[in-house]
Formats: sequence, structure tokens, C-alpha cells
Amino acid sequence: MTEAVSESIHQSLISDFSEVRKATIELFRPLRVEDAVVQSDAFGSPANWHLAHVTWFFHKILEKYGSSQMLEDDAKKVGVSLSYLNSYYQRYGSILPKTERGKFPRPTVEQTLRYRSLIDTAVPAFLSQAITLTDEIRYDITLGIQHEMQHQELMIYDFQNYFQRFLDSEDNYKPVVARDPPIAQVNREKPTGTVRVPGGIYELGFSGTDFCYDNELPEHKVYLQPFKIDIAPVTNGDFIRFVEAGGYQDYKYWLSDGWDLAQEQQWKAPLYWEWKDDKWVKKDFRGLREIDLDEPVVNVSYYEADAYAHWAGKRLPTEPEWEKAASWNEEIQRKTLYPWGDQPPTVEHANLLESHIWRPARVGSYPKGKSHYGCHQMIGDAWEWTSSEYVLYPGFHSKFSEYTDKWAINQKVLRGGCFATPSMQIRNSYRNYFKPHERILFAGFRCVEDDPSRGLEE
Amino acid sequence: MTEAVSESIHQSLISDFSEVRKATIELFRPLRVEDAVVQSDAFGSPANWHLAHVTWFFHKILEKYGSSQMLEDDAKKVGVSLSYLNSYYQRYGSILPKTERGKFPRPTVEQTLRYRSLIDTAVPAFLSQAITLTDEIRYDITLGIQHEMQHQELMIYDFQNYFQRFLDSEDNYKPVVARDPPIAQVNREKPTGTVRVPGGIYELGFSGTDFCYDNELPEHKVYLQPFKIDIAPVTNGDFIRFVEAGGYQDYKYWLSDGWDLAQEQQWKAPLYWEWKDDKWVKKDFRGLREIDLDEPVVNVSYYEADAYAHWAGKRLPTEPEWEKAASWNEEIQRKTLYPWGDQPPTVEHANLLESHIWRPARVGSYPKGKSHYGCHQMIGDAWEWTSSEYVLYPGFHSKFSEYTDKWAINQKVLRGGCFATPSMQIRNSYRNYFKPHERILFAGFRCVEDDPSRGLEE
Amino acid sequence: MTEAVSESIHQSLISDFSEVRKATIELFRPLRVEDAVVQSDAFGSPANWHLAHVTWFFHKILEKYGSSQMLEDDAKKVGVSLSYLNSYYQRYGSILPKTERGKFPRPTVEQTLRYRSLIDTAVPAFLSQAITLTDEIRYDITLGIQHEMQHQELMIYDFQNYFQRFLDSEDNYKPVVARDPPIAQVNREKPTGTVRVPGGIYELGFSGTDFCYDNELPEHKVYLQPFKIDIAPVTNGDFIRFVEAGGYQDYKYWLSDGWDLAQEQQWKAPLYWEWKDDKWVKKDFRGLREIDLDEPVVNVSYYEADAYAHWAGKRLPTEPEWEKAASWNEEIQRKTLYPWGDQPPTVEHANLLESHIWRPARVGSYPKGKSHYGCHQMIGDAWEWTSSEYVLYPGFHSKFSEYTDKWAINQKVLRGGCFATPSMQIRNSYRNYFKPHERILFAGFRCVEDDPSRGLEE
Amino acid sequence: MTEAVSESIHQSLISDFSEVRKATIELFRPLRVEDAVVQSDAFGSPANWHLAHVTWFFHKILEKYGSSQMLEDDAKKVGVSLSYLNSYYQRYGSILPKTERGKFPRPTVEQTLRYRSLIDTAVPAFLSQAITLTDEIRYDITLGIQHEMQHQELMIYDFQNYFQRFLDSEDNYKPVVARDPPIAQVNREKPTGTVRVPGGIYELGFSGTDFCYDNELPEHKVYLQPFKIDIAPVTNGDFIRFVEAGGYQDYKYWLSDGWDLAQEQQWKAPLYWEWKDDKWVKKDFRGLREIDLDEPVVNVSYYEADAYAHWAGKRLPTEPEWEKAASWNEEIQRKTLYPWGDQPPTVEHANLLESHIWRPARVGSYPKGKSHYGCHQMIGDAWEWTSSEYVLYPGFHSKFSEYTDKWAINQKVLRGGCFATPSMQIRNSYRNYFKPHERILFAGFRCVEDDPSRGLEE
Repeated sequence: MTEAVSESIHQSLISDFSEVRKATIELFRPLRVEDAVVQSDAFGSPANWHLAHVTWFFHKILEKYGSSQMLEDDAKKVGVSLSYLNSYYQRYGSILPKTERGKFPRPTVEQTLRYRSLIDTAVPAFLSQAITLTDEIRYDITLGIQHEMQHQELMIYDFQNYFQRFLDSEDNYKPVVARDPPIAQVNREKPTGTVRVPGGIYELGFSGTDFCYDNELPEHKVYLQPFKIDIAPVTNGDFIRFVEAGGYQDYKYWLSDGWDLAQEQQWKAPLYWEWKDDKWVKKDFRGLREIDLDEPVVNVSYYEADAYAHWAGKRLPTEPEWEKAASWNEEIQRKTLYPWGDQPPTVEHANLLESHIWRPARVGSYPKGKSHYGCHQMIGDAWEWTSSEYVLYPGFHSKFSEYTDKWAINQKVLRGGCFATPSMQIRNSYRNYFKPHERILFAGFRCVEDDPSRGLEE
Repeated sequence: MTEAVSESIHQSLISDFSEVRKATIELFRPLRVEDAVVQSDAFGSPANWHLAHVTWFFHKILEKYGSSQMLEDDAKKVGVSLSYLNSYYQRYGSILPKTERGKFPRPTVEQTLRYRSLIDTAVPAFLSQAITLTDEIRYDITLGIQHEMQHQELMIYDFQNYFQRFLDSEDNYKPVVARDPPIAQVNREKPTGTVRVPGGIYELGFSGTDFCYDNELPEHKVYLQPFKIDIAPVTNGDFIRFVEAGGYQDYKYWLSDGWDLAQEQQWKAPLYWEWKDDKWVKKDFRGLREIDLDEPVVNVSYYEADAYAHWAGKRLPTEPEWEKAASWNEEIQRKTLYPWGDQPPTVEHANLLESHIWRPARVGSYPKGKSHYGCHQMIGDAWEWTSSEYVLYPGFHSKFSEYTDKWAINQKVLRGGCFATPSMQIRNSYRNYFKPHERILFAGFRCVEDDPSRGLEE
Repeated sequence: MTEAVSESIHQSLISDFSEVRKATIELFRPLRVEDAVVQSDAFGSPANWHLAHVTWFFHKILEKYGSSQMLEDDAKKVGVSLSYLNSYYQRYGSILPKTERGKFPRPTVEQTLRYRSLIDTAVPAFLSQAITLTDEIRYDITLGIQHEMQHQELMIYDFQNYFQRFLDSEDNYKPVVARDPPIAQVNREKPTGTVRVPGGIYELGFSGTDFCYDNELPEHKVYLQPFKIDIAPVTNGDFIRFVEAGGYQDYKYWLSDGWDLAQEQQWKAPLYWEWKDDKWVKKDFRGLREIDLDEPVVNVSYYEADAYAHWAGKRLPTEPEWEKAASWNEEIQRKTLYPWGDQPPTVEHANLLESHIWRPARVGSYPKGKSHYGCHQMIGDAWEWTSSEYVLYPGFHSKFSEYTDKWAINQKVLRGGCFATPSMQIRNSYRNYFKPHERILFAGFRCVEDDPSRGLEE
Repeated sequence: MTEAVSESIHQSLISDFSEVRKATIELFRPLRVEDAVVQSDAFGSPANWHLAHVTWFFHKILEKYGSSQMLEDDAKKVGVSLSYLNSYYQRYGSILPKTERGKFPRPTVEQTLRYRSLIDTAVPAFLSQAITLTDEIRYDITLGIQHEMQHQELMIYDFQNYFQRFLDSEDNYKPVVARDPPIAQVNREKPTGTVRVPGGIYELGFSGTDFCYDNELPEHKVYLQPFKIDIAPVTNGDFIRFVEAGGYQDYKYWLSDGWDLAQEQQWKAPLYWEWKDDKWVKKDFRGLREIDLDEPVVNVSYYEADAYAHWAGKRLPTEPEWEKAASWNEEIQRKTLYPWGDQPPTVEHANLLESHIWRPARVGSYPKGKSHYGCHQMIGDAWEWTSSEYVLYPGFHSKFSEYTDKWAINQKVLRGGCFATPSMQIRNSYRNYFKPHERILFAGFRCVEDDPSRGLEE
């Protein structure tokens, strides 16, 4: 690597770091202190906790490289006790149970912000001083950046969950979360129908050269049967037909565990939906408003997605099916990083991306963003549930233990990315995962069908 | 009533109101916003909630007298939605479940303080304008004052519960709760032994002319057997003997429900005690410190108090036994309002009271405060569990429905008042009540024995 | 005591023992083995467990007097391991949690019956051999007899709870529980209104010379205010008016704990009631049948009784109020053992009693059974909730520790006895007790009112 | 099909039916009625319920073919209400919650046996009358037979769970469950080490012509990476090394969900193990005995299996990896139905099988039973956890809805079959599935490793 190249990598890493840190603060700044420390749901975390946790994550990276001494002295001055920042990382000592995060508001918001600014200075300083920027350092810092973006998205789920409840008690309430809060988009083309994807051997996983998570690797062969996949994700309008056909009342569409849960919690529609004055309404960052039939449905659990698919006589795609439909280009006989090709997302291709790294969603231009096989909106509208359990790929090697390994159980893979996902987190091979009962994330789905009529093209 | 007298009552009511409001703010002011909105235990409430709730209570009183109109307009300007202030008062509409108070920090601290200052102005204005200060108005306003003092004490329980947990993670942490946080006192005389109290008819209840709660009335006859009662409350030193004798491990001392709970929650000593470096230590407003053997034991449930009494071959007093031992003066053949007589408490008599209304506890001078029968520390050190279920007195008439009636089940009466109880709340006839499993309040106990050797003195 | 008297006491004790043992078997015999081992509710126990437990109780008595050696050898032959018979008597070693009784059917029914016949022989043999029948022996054996009768009644509660559920799935199902299963009775006089009872000192507790439980002693003075008490227990017809007035939907009648529970469990009427074809029906030993408006209401919790009383503008009686209304005879200036006088109950006086000891209920003749003050049906129709917590009387001395002491918490006293109570268990001073939420026992209530208009007659 | 062939199929179906029915009764007969109706664990069911349920299953098949009329009249005479036999088949009407099965012992044991004998007659009669034995009829009857064998195995799990608890209270207790109760076997060769299995395309699923479950179909291609697999399942001796190395105390080996559960339930070793007198002992059908180090470990959850694999630096096999290691024969270039070839199991090949259909396990002769790649004990010793979630194969078509579809969530596939699995249930392609926390089944595991050193042989 020439010095110039190395210099440029240095600079670009520092600039990514700064940009992502700034974006977090932009999300956080509109909050009152009261709202920053509440844990509104056992699934979520207080915003102040997110802020401190992502900062501590960089702290640990500096510690790994022996560069945290001064930092720790400073942290003490700020009054930050590091012991309660470990979240689920058990190897760093006794941890506060996740459900207790709302009962222990330390560091305080002010302490968090001061601690944060220590790191804001220390990381670029560390990078500037590093004579050689090893691959490991680059990877670790990039991981810290990606990790922080994950938490940006989780914060948005928490905001949606938390603020919507105030619409009951505060007239005309508008949660001031960000200048342009992320909301779902309508695909103006309103495509319908399915496309055919041939079967055969497919290489699953990340094939690029830039950063990816360890769970996207290694790329490896799988064998697919031919299938037909929906051109577009299921919309609110589609889903209302399921609701109105009595889908939530008929066990025959449901997985047993899903049915039990739906009965116990009395699900009647997606999370946040309410039946009011003879129509379905929903509370989101736009306030209380009627359901837009043309937006992709979100805030449905895996169970609801699967029940819909049964009702429709279809099924959910497996993880490799989804990826092949998004990635494979028959013409050039290779995968692309994004449905539309290898260029990183811009506002032309999908819906979120004015900034280099991250911006809450707005207008996209879907047709240009479609995949080789013709699927629209595979990235950036809604996470899409797949029927594959989240397991590690054969040959997997953990780059950061306790970060990847321990969660590979009882979760389903989601692919794509939603309107609240930072653009740098978006790529065809990205593997998100949640328990099948979770509804708080902006997840929807599209269906597939077997395609026995078609031979294997290989 | 002459005009002058009425004028003076006006003034004294306004002055009491102002003083109690100031005291609440003194308790509240040292808090960070983060700490003000946390509900640290399902039993407790956020401090910010306490603050808004006691204010809303006055609001409702003004509403009753048609004087809340302007107030409500103002409240709206402040952004306060009244609907979530109702706490348990179901008659005012749908209520937020108590356990959710920590998840709904509205009004914000700032809104609460502004709302509070509206009431701070409105109540004196209402009293000044009232041409005739009816008994009902006086009672209601006084009730509001007393109610606020109750919540002051509950806030202190919450502070103890909440802040002690930081001692694990923050070195040298001193919770800044109030200038002089309330703590237990040592009786320098260290009295021991019992005194005899004769049986016969006794008139139970409030016999004074000033304010009392409706549940202290009507005064009515009960019949007592002769008994012997401990001169002093059980101390930490006494209680440690029970602990060391295996009292927490031997079911034979315990009520069945108590034993089950103690096993389930693995009780080994009073709440907040820990065994550390071969001694019992405790976290309180003084930090982490060794147990003082001469302080009255506190933070024990009824079950623990009862188990101790069984172990000691004694029993807990009934409510009338406790009151007679505190109140009856054989020489003057009548009850007194306080153990020491009818003068309101001052720093000479008990331990909390430099101010007219309320001050957190400091030095007392116990011997002067003892009762006619010779009992020390009956008021102002620790609430004392009695064996009487909290039921309403025969002939009871509710002055404020939903405030008194609905709680008369599954609770035990406590008498006396603790080092965190405002002085105006203290009198012999005051009836506090909690479920027998609660340990968060500063409750201890003293024991009694039957006295068959002695005839009835009547 | 002369030899003849002693002889006669011997004989009568043996004869009581035999009769009660026979009655238990009569209750048990119609059961299938399957039904004998099911624990239908966490509150109840399998019938087979009851059978073995009451037998073990006699076993322990013989052990106390050194007469169990041969018995234990025999028990071993029968294959009975005594360790799982201890039920709640913790002092006899580790116990099976009550809720597990249905998962551990040992001894088997056959073993139980064989074990039982060993005791059937051993107890009379022991009594015959005893040279002097000490008071302690008499008391202990009588306690065993009374204890077995308590369990007979509990078995009937369990049968009601268990068998009624089959009415859903088996047409024309008639549970064959006993030849004449106990059912509620109608008072043909249909008395209404209240009677006045004067206040003053009253001696509460058992004043007879025969057996009573230790918790009925010592007799001691209490002081009562004058009151008015309902002549008859609240009937189904009365209670339906409360139901139809929306009593279960309006929190204002309810104790807070009761309201929470009623909401959680969706109570709409007494236990076992159902709304079917536009009327209230109930399943009991007679099958599915329409509610008889003139029977006393039963299977209501304390909470429901208290809510009714609030709705009716009345209250529940205290324990001494109930007892005085049942016991005190102004003419002879003393208490009687039963409402009607001192003669033990026969079929003329109440409703259950053809046999000397026990029979399930049938026709009574109420007017003759009324108390001096004119109250009907105070004994033998329904247990009546009182507002008094179950605490031990002042001066109480336990005759059988772990049997009496440990339950004196969180329970309300019931007085009277129901149509399933063996006649020997019935007397004015008998203290039954249950948690306020229990609905499985045949408990109803009558109301009282304060009577300020009347002076104390003393 | 010629008449003779058809005749022979008739006869063989009837004979299989009779044999499996007889085997169930042999399992059931030693039970006392008391033991037959207990539901010892929420996971399990009463034996009497199993008996009635498998019978009802045939009843429904006859109903499908219009041959149940007489049967239903007869059932009524026997007193059997069919409504409570539906278990989880929601489509047949309201169902008794599984956890309540122990509280509703209907039909009684006697009714069950009479109902059973009605079916024992009706099914052969139906088959004899059927002019043409359609494939559908054959499939359905065979399904009923297989279904009954599944429940035989579940009954054995229940027996183990239920009877072992009596070893605490009954000296020298030997549960009389069957003449030769199933127990684990030792492989006398004690093989260790791994074998290599090449990667490439593999056809997963059932390739035979006889009966298989719908979830074993369709056979379809998958792609495997090369791997090394343990020759033998992990033994008790292996597992004790994990236990003694602190495996249950170190979170780093565990999946997050597994760790949480293990902490909550305080797992320290496999289910049924106890540490006693300085060694590990276990209660099984042989009584209380020391752990045999050479038996395969069983009664471990998926979580424990996975933790062991992590500790050993390996991983669990996927479902296709397991199947290929058991089925593929490179020499003949096709799969075999069993590890040893296509002949059905006999006592020579595995351990359970003296009878044509079913026998509890005894001596096996493992070396002859090994697979082409050299794996021992793949069938008939212990179910083996795989890392694959139970999902339906691509192209799956349900033959019996509600039977297969609804369970494909939150479960892991197990392969192989244990010493309590009927021999007709055993084949390489059989897919068993349980939730990862279940420990009651006789499940163990073997480990695999990636084999990057080896190329793909294809």
C-alpha cells in the first residue's frame, strides 16, 4: 500500500467515524432528558444507554490497542463508571440485566455526552498516531462505526414505540425526533405479480472487498430449487385483505407457537394499528393517520408474515432464495452488491441516502433500484422476514466472539434493510435476525412459491 | 368565630400550605432529571410523579369549589395533560397502571414545576378570596397538606431504595437528597425491659380537636386484657441475635405466608443489610456503613417482626394496646395526643422537628419524650408494626371516598411514625398501614406479652 | 372420675372415632380411582390424599404415646412411605409442595385403604389398653376426629369443583359422590329485615366444657357498639340484584385488591354461575340447574361479599358481632352453644344431622333454629364471611403448634358452618378462616349496620 | 396390482396394526390406574391419554371413509365423550389445554380400554371390507400405526420422568413398566475419532418406496461443504469431562438463550443426574445407579449439546451432514435406508428389534451396524441433535394438515432414533424435532468439524 493510499484510508476512516457520530447526536439531540432515560419496552433500551454503549464500544477497541489509559483517567473525572456499560458482553464482568436499564440512569445524560466527546477526540487521535493502519485496526474501527449505526436504527424503533403512546394523551403531539423522521415510502409504480428465479448451485454470502460482518462469511455454495418470488413486498392494502378475511381468527393459517401468542396478546392487526371510526389507523412519526394502502406493511412478526403467506397459498423465501433474487445477474454471471448493481446507494436508487453514510428516509426512485430478476424495493423499504433460522455459515470464523456466536438460536434471518437503516448498513448479503415474535422492528415480507414447471438453469 | 380568629386561621392555613410546598421542593431540588423520573421499585413512584400528583390533588380541591377554571387554561398552556395524574383515583377516569409510572414521564420535570407554581399561587388566592372559610374548606385544604406530607415520606423511601444501589458502582457516592437526610437515631439511655399496662375498657381513636384523618375516627370503646410492653423498640443488636440464632432458617418462628416469601426471596436479614467482611453492613443516606447495634431495627416486614416476636417468646401488640401504652395517662385519667403530653413535638421531645411542620430527623432527647407508662421512642424513630389488620373503626364515615375505604384489606396497621415522617403527621392516633410483606418503609416494632398475673384496673 | 364414667367416655370416644371414619369412607367409596387422585385446583387436594392424610394424623398421635411401633412395621408391609403424608407439617421433614399432590399418587388408593384399616384397628386398641384416659389423650383423639371431619368438608368442596366440569362434556352426568350429596336449602319462611343487637362488653369465645379448638379460647371480653344485623343470609335473589345493577362492573363498591382480582379473572357472578339462555344457571351436585332465588348465595369470595355490602349501604359483621347475634341470650343472661340453645343440633334445628356425627345436608326447620335476637340460619346453611382478620385471641395458648399459629395472617374469619359441614363441627364459637379471594368453599354472608340510635344496654 | 399382492398387503397391514396395538398395551398394562392418569410434566401426557388419543386417531380415519357410524354408537355406550380426545387438533373443535390433561381423567382407564377394543375390531373389519385398498387408505392406516408408535416412545419418556421420582421415597423401588424396559447400551468397541465426509451436491430426504412421513419429502438437492464427523456419539464419560471442566459455569460456551435458561433452572449436569457420595448417579429404569461412562449421553438439551461442542472446539452437524454420513454409500453411489444398508433393522444391526415392529431395547451389535463412512450407532442409541431448525423441505406437500405444518418453528431436527424408538420408526431420513430446551427425550449428539483440507469429491 502506498503512503498516499494509506493516508487516504486514514482520512476516510476518520471522516466516516465523525459522520456517524454526528448522526447519532442528531437523533439524540431533540430528546428531553426524561425521554432519554426511559426504557419503554423490555425489547428496547433507553436512548441514553444506546449513546453510552456505542461509545464504550470504541473505548474497548482503544483498550485493545493499549490506547485507553488517558481516556480512563478522563472518564473517571467525568464520573463515568464503566461497569454498567457492558450490556450483554458477559466477559467484561457482571452485567446489568437488560430489563433493568430503565432503572439505572447512569451515566447521566450529561456524563454520557462528556464521555462521548472524550471518545470523539480519542479515536481520531489514535488513528492519526497509528504508524501503520493494520487490517485489524481498520476492521475494528469500522466495526465500531457499523455497530453504532445498528444502534441508531434500534433507537428509531424505540422512539416509534415510545412516542406513539403520547398521541393518546397529548393533543396534536408531534414527536420531534429528527428533522426528517424515517417513514415508509410508496412505490409509485405499484408493481404486482411474481418473477421466476431458476434453481441450481448458488454462492451465498458476501463477495465484496470492503467491510462486512463476520456472519456474512464465508461465501459458500448452496443448492436452490427454482422458485417464483413476489416483485414487491406485501403492502398494507394486501395485508388488510388478510385481516378482513379473518386471518387473525383462523388457527389454520398459523404456526402453533404464533397462534398461541396471538391469542394470548390478542393480536388483531400489525403493531401500532388501531380500528377507529370504521377504518384502520396508525400512529407513527407523522402522528395519527389513516393507513396508506400502498406502503409496504411493517411491524409484523414472523408469525404474522407466515400466516399471511399460508393464507395466500404461498410461503416465505429462504435466506438464499431472497439473496439470489436480489443479487444474481444472469447477464454478467455474477452477484452484485446491491439489487441495482455495485454502486453504493444514492438517492437515485433507494430511499434513504442523501448523506454519504446515513440519513432518515425520503423519496426513492424504485424502478431504477430493481434487481436483475425484476424485484422492486428489496433494499431500504422494510426488512423482509425469511424462513431461515439464523445459523452461522459453514466454515464461519468469529471475528469478535460474544458478538456473533451467542445469538445463533431461535431467531429468523431478515434481509434488505428498512427506511430507518443507515445506508452504509445496506447490502444484499447483510443478515439481520430477530426472534419470530418481535414486532417492534420495521419488518415486512414478500412471498415465494415453488416453481416445479421450470427446469434448473445450470 | 370572630373575624380575627378567622383571619388567623386563614393565615395559618396559608402558611402551612406554603411551608409544606417548600419542603417538598427542598426534597426534590437536589435530584437530577434522570433520577426524578425513575421508578426504582414497583412499590414506589418516580419523584416527579409524586410532585405532580400532590399538586393535582390541590387542583381537584379547587375544582370542587369551582375555582379551577383559570387554572386549567393555564395548565394547558404549560402543556400538562391532567389525565395521567389520577394515580389510583379511578373515579377520575382511566388510570395509568402504577407499575407503568416509570415509563411515561409526563408531565416533564419542567412542566411539573410550572404546574406546581400555578397551584402555589392559586391555593392562597382561593383562601384569601373565600369570604367564609367553612369547616369543609379547611378540612379539604388541610387534607391536601397532609397528603403532600405523606408523599414526602414516600419519596424518602424511594430515595433510600433507589440511591443505595449506586453504592455498588460509584465509589464514595453520597446521594444528595436533602441537606440533612433522615437517618435512624440512637437512644442514649439504652432502656430495656417492659412496663405493665392494665386492661379494661379503652377509648380508641383521635380525641383532639384539630385535624385528623377520617380513619382515626370515631373514638370508640374497646376492651383490653392487661399486658406488658417493651420499653423500647427492638434494636439492630437485638435483631442480630435473632439472625445469628438461625431465625431466618427455622420455619417454626414464621407465619406460613411469611416463610414461603422469605424462602422465595431468600431473605437473610432486613432489607438493605449485607454480610461483608465478617460483619453486617448497610447502605443508607450515610453511605455504606457498619450496622449500629443501638439504632432501632427498620426495613423489616411484618413477617420478620412476627417471627422475631415468636422467637423471643412474645407477640406483637394490637393496635389498641399500642395506642393505650402511648396515650393513656392514669394520673390525669385521659389520653394525651403524644406520648409526652399534648404539646406538639419539638426538638426537645422527639427527633425531627426544628421547623413548625417538617424537617428530616436529627437529634432527639428521648427520656423527655417517653409515655406515661414509661415507653420510649414511641413516636418518630420507626413505624411499629401492630398485629391488627387495617379495618375501619365501627361507625366510620368516609370523608373522602376512594381515599380511605378501598385499602382496608390485607394490610397491617403501623403506629408511631419514623425518622422520615413529617412532624405534623405524628400523633398517637395516626394509623399507617402496609401489606405485611413490604420492607421498603422504615418500620420496626416492639413486642408485648400477656400479663395474666395482673388484674384489670377498673 | 368414676370408673363407670371413664368407661363410658372410652366407649363414646371409640364410637365417635368409628363413626367419623365410616363417614369418610362413605364419601370416598363412590369415586373411581382416576377421580380419587386428581387435584382439580391448586386450592384443593386429591381425595386419596385427604384419606391418607387424616389417617396419618392419628398415626402421629399414637406415635406420641409410644404406640405406633407395630403400626409402622405394618405400614411398611403395606408399602406406605410415610414421608409424603406430612402435608404442611414442616417439622416432620421435607414436604411435597401442595400444588404437587396431584402428581404423586402415593400411597395408591389400595395402599391408603389398607393403611387406613390398620389405623381403624390401632386407635380403638390403644384406647382400650390405656389404663387412664388422660385429658391429653382425650383431647388428641378428639382433635384427630375433628380434623378428619374438616377434611370431609374440604373433600366436598373439591368434589363440587371437580365434577361440575364434566357437565360440559358428559350429557346427563350426575356425579355419584354420596347417597345424598350436600346442597343448599331454602328457608320457607323467607324472613327479611334486620334485628337490633345492643352494644357493651361481650365475652367472646367458647364457653362450653366439651371439645373446642384452641383458637376458640380463651374466652375474653371485647366491647361492641350497638348494631343491626340481617335476619337472614343474603339469598341468590338478593345477589342477582347486585349483579344486575352492574355491581361487578363498578369499582366504587370494591376493595382495591378485590377489584384488581375480579378484573384479572373476569368475575361476573359467583363461582359456578353461568349466564345461559337468558338466565343464571349453576352446576352443582344436582346437575345443571337454574339458580334458586331463595337459597342463600354461596361460592362468593370475601371481596364479592364486601362489594355487595357496600352496594347495599351496609357492611359485613365483625367476628364478635356475629357471635353475639348468634349466642347471647338476654333472658338467661348468658351465651348458648348454638343459636337455638345448648342442645346439640338435630334435624329439627338445622339441616344436616340425622346421624350423631355427620350427614350431608337435607331438610332443616329454620324457625326453630333461630337465635335469641331472631336471626335465622346462622348455622348450617352457609359459612358467613366476617370482616375480622383471623388472629389468635389474647392469651391464646397453642395446643398443637404448626396447626393453629402459622395461619393467622391474611385470612378472614368465617362463622356458622355450611350445608356440607359435619354437625359435630358446628357451634357458635367455631372459627373458620380463608383468604379473602377464595371462592371454592360454600361461603355466603349477611350484612350489618351501625345502630347509633340505640344506647348501650349495659 | 394382482389380487394376491393386494391380499398380502391387506394382511400385512392388519398384522402390523395388531402388533402395534398389542405393544401399546404391553407398555400400559403394568401401570396402576393412579399412575396411568397422572401428567407428571407439562411436556408429557398421562398414559391413559396417550392410549385414548392414538385410538381416536384411527377413529377419525374410519370417519373419513364413512365407517365410523356404528363405532360412534358403541363409543357412546362405553361412555366415551369424543370431545376431549382432540388434543392439539384444533380443527375438531374446542380443545382441552395440554397442561390440563392430568386434571380431566376421561375417558376413564376402563372406558379407554373398552373404546380401544372397539377400534381393535373396527379397523381390521374396515380393511377386510374395503374392496380396493387405495393408496390413500393404506397411507392413512399406516400413518395411524406410525402415530401410535410415536406415542409409545413418548410414553416411555413420561415413565422415566414420572417413576424416577419415586426412588427418593420408596426403598428398592423398581418401576414395573415393561418386561424389558428400554435402557442405553454400551458400544463394546468404544470407537473414537472422526471420519471424513466429502462435500458436494447431496439429495436430502427419503428415497424409498415404503411409508415415510410427509416431512421426509420431497427428496431434493442440497450442497454440502466437506466435513469430519465423530465416529461415535458423545458418551457419559466425554460429557463428564465437560462438566468437570466447569462447562456449566462458563457462559462463553453457551448460546445466550441456553445460558439464561441454565442459570434460571440451575442446570449442573444432564437431566436425572445427581451428585451423590462423590460421584455422578442417575435414576432410570434400572433404579438408582452410578453413571456408566461408556453409554452415550442422553437427556441433554440442544443448548447443552451445543455448549459441549463449543467447549470441544467443534460444532453440531447440520441435518444434511448427519444424513449423508449415515446414508451415502460411495461404492454403490446411492443412499441406503439405514446406515448398514437397506435391510430393515434386526437384532444384529441395532439394539431394539427382536419383534418385527417394536421392542424395547437390549443388546445390539454395533460394528455391523456402522455406516459406509464408518460412523457407529447412528440409529437406535440416542436421538442426535442437529443444528438445523425444523423447516419443511422445498416443495413440501402436506398429507395431513395440522399434523406437520404447524410445528415447523422454534424446533431443532434430531436424527437417528433412541433405544426407546420402535424399530419401524427408524430410518436414516426420519425427522424428529423438539424445542432446544427440552431434556426429557433420550437425546444425545455427535460433533462435526469443517474439513477445509479436503476437496470436494464430486
